Amino acid sequence: MQYVKKFNELTDRFCELERVAKVALICPDDEASLHVISRCVTERLADFILIDSAPCPESIKALDTAYPGHIQWRIAPTPDEAARLGVDIIRTGQADVLMKGIINTDNLMRAILNKEHGLLPPGNILTHITVCEIPSYHKLLAFSDATVIPYPTLEQYDAMVRYNVELAHTLGIESPKVALIHFTEKVNPKFQNTIDYVELKHRAAAGKYGNAVVDGPIDVKTAVDLHSSQVKGIITPVAGDADILIFPDLEAGNTFYKTVSFFGNAVMAGIVIGASAPIVLPSRADSAESKFYSLALACLALRHYTTT
Amino acid sequence: MQYVKKFNELTDRFCELERVAKVALICPDDEASLHVISRCVTERLADFILIDSAPCPESIKALDTAYPGHIQWRIAPTPDEAARLGVDIIRTGQADVLMKGIINTDNLMRAILNKEHGLLPPGNILTHITVCEIPSYHKLLAFSDATVIPYPTLEQYDAMVRYNVELAHTLGIESPKVALIHFTEKVNPKFQNTIDYVELKHRAAAGKYGNAVVDGPIDVKTAVDLHSSQVKGIITPVAGDADILIFPDLEAGNTFYKTVSFFGNAVMAGIVIGASAPIVLPSRADSAESKFYSLALACLALRHYTTT
Repeated sequence: MQYVKKFNELTDRFCELERVAKVALICPDDEASLHVISRCVTERLADFILIDSAPCPESIKALDTAYPGHIQWRIAPTPDEAARLGVDIIRTGQADVLMKGIINTDNLMRAILNKEHGLLPPGNILTHITVCEIPSYHKLLAFSDATVIPYPTLEQYDAMVRYNVELAHTLGIESPKVALIHFTEKVNPKFQNTIDYVELKHRAAAGKYGNAVVDGPIDVKTAVDLHSSQVKGIITPVAGDADILIFPDLEAGNTFYKTVSFFGNAVMAGIVIGASAPIVLPSRADSAESKFYSLALACLALRHYTTT
Repeated sequence: MQYVKKFNELTDRFCELERVAKVALICPDDEASLHVISRCVTERLADFILIDSAPCPESIKALDTAYPGHIQWRIAPTPDEAARLGVDIIRTGQADVLMKGIINTDNLMRAILNKEHGLLPPGNILTHITVCEIPSYHKLLAFSDATVIPYPTLEQYDAMVRYNVELAHTLGIESPKVALIHFTEKVNPKFQNTIDYVELKHRAAAGKYGNAVVDGPIDVKTAVDLHSSQVKGIITPVAGDADILIFPDLEAGNTFYKTVSFFGNAVMAGIVIGASAPIVLPSRADSAESKFYSLALACLALRHYTTT
C-alpha cells in the first residue's frame, strides 16, 4: 500500500475509513470550526456533539435540518463547563475524539488533566504531534513536541518516539525514520538528551517501537538535507530522509513549528496523543484546512485506541 | 543613512570601509576560504596572515605574486599549533579578525578560550550572532545563539542583546527591534527565561542597550509575522518586524538556524562576539558567499573594538 505523502492523500484515507467517528467539539463558533463541521457532515466523515455556552448558530441549525441526526447541540453554563462536559462525553464513550474550537487551550487542558474526571489514565504520557507538509520537502514530516512537554525525560522521549512511529504506521509508512534532534551529532554527558538518545536507539534496536529506524543525535538540517549530511560525512538512513523529528525541548520544537510554518510555507496539522482519546487542539490562528487535516489525523489515529 | 537590508548592501558597506582589516585565517586550504581570500585581496577589502600545517598552495602563491604585500603564509607544525599561532597573532596586534578555515571548531575554540594565552578577557561573555537574509522576510534578521551558549543565564542573555544591538547599529538600524523568544507570550516562573526577559526589558527601558526596542516573551511567528500577532491580539512594535531574535537556548537557536537555512532558503552569515577580536567561525558546509558575508560582518563589527 502506498504511504501518505501529502495532505490530500491524508484526506483520501480519511474518506476511506469504514467507521464514522463521533467528535466532541468544545466552543465551535468560529469560522474554521464551522467549515470543518460542515465538510465532515456533508461528506459523512464524522458526526458531532457540539458543546458551547452560547445558543446554536443559524448555520449549524440549517446543516442539522439538511443532514438530520449527525449533529447534537449541548449547552453548558460557561466555557469551563463546556470543557468539563466534553471530557465527560469522551469518558462515557459517547464520542471518540475531543476537539477544541475557540475555547482557551489552558481551560480545556485543565479539564483534560483533571485527576478524577479527566482523560489521562495514571502513568500515561501526553504529547503533541505535528504533521506538516512543506513544499520543499519530499514527504510529510511529523515532529514532537511543539506544545505540551517542556523538557522531556527519557520516558517522555520514549513515548514521543512510540506515538510518532504508531502514527506513521497508520499513514502507511512501513519503517519510519526517526531523527533525535540535537545541535550537533556528538553524544556529550553535559547534555542529558544525548545520553537519553543512546538509550532510545538501544530500545529501537531491541524492537520496542516495531518497524522503525531511530538515529541521533543529529541536527535538523542533517535530518532533512542529504547534501548537508554528505558534506559532514554522516552516514545513516535517517539523514536527509527523516519522517519524524524528536526535538530536545519545547523551545526547539515550537521554534521549528513556527519557522517552517512561516518561512517554509508549511501547512500544519496537529493532535495530542496519550489521553484516552485523540485530542485536536488547534491554535486560534490555524486555517480551516489545517483544522480539517488535524481532525483527519485524529480519526486515523483512532485505530490505535480501538485495537489496544 | 539607509540601513543594510540585504547582503549586497552589506558588501557595499564593507567596500566603503576606510581601513583595510588584517585577517588571521587558520587552515585556509578549502575552496570557499580561497575564494574569500582572492576576492578580498583583489578588491583591497582585507589583508591576510594565513596559518597552516601544510605548504602554501599554488593558487595563493599566484595571488601573492599578482598582489604582493597583502598575504603572509605561516607554517605551524600541526593544526592545533596553527590555532595557537593565530590566537597569538591577534593577541600581539598583528591582525584584527580571527577566521576559521577547515580546522575543527573545537580545536580552534580551545585555543581561543585558553585562560592564559587565549582571547577572552576575564568577565567577557562569548556569543555567536547569525545574520540571515531570508527571501520571504523584508529585511536582514539577526539572532543568537546557534553555536556557543547552551542555556544562557541572565547576564549571558544581557550580553546577547547588547552585542546584537551594537551590530544592528553598525548596519545602520537606528532602533533595532529585539524579540525575546519563548513558546508563548506568557511570563511564567516555571520558565526562568521568561523572568529574565522581564529584567532585560527593564534594562532596555533604562537605556542600557541604547536606542533599541526590546519585547518578549514572544514566539518566533509573532516576532516575524504581523498577521499572526494581529490574530493573537498582541500589540508591540516588535511583532512582525523584528530585527533581532534572542533564543531561549542553543537547541532552539540551532533549530532556527538549520530550519530557515534549509526550508526558508536563507543565506547565513555568522560571527562570534565577546572576545578581544571578532571571530569568523563558519561551518565546513557553508558556501563561499556565506563565508564572505561573515567576514564582512566581522570587519564592520571592528568599529566596536577600535572605539572601546
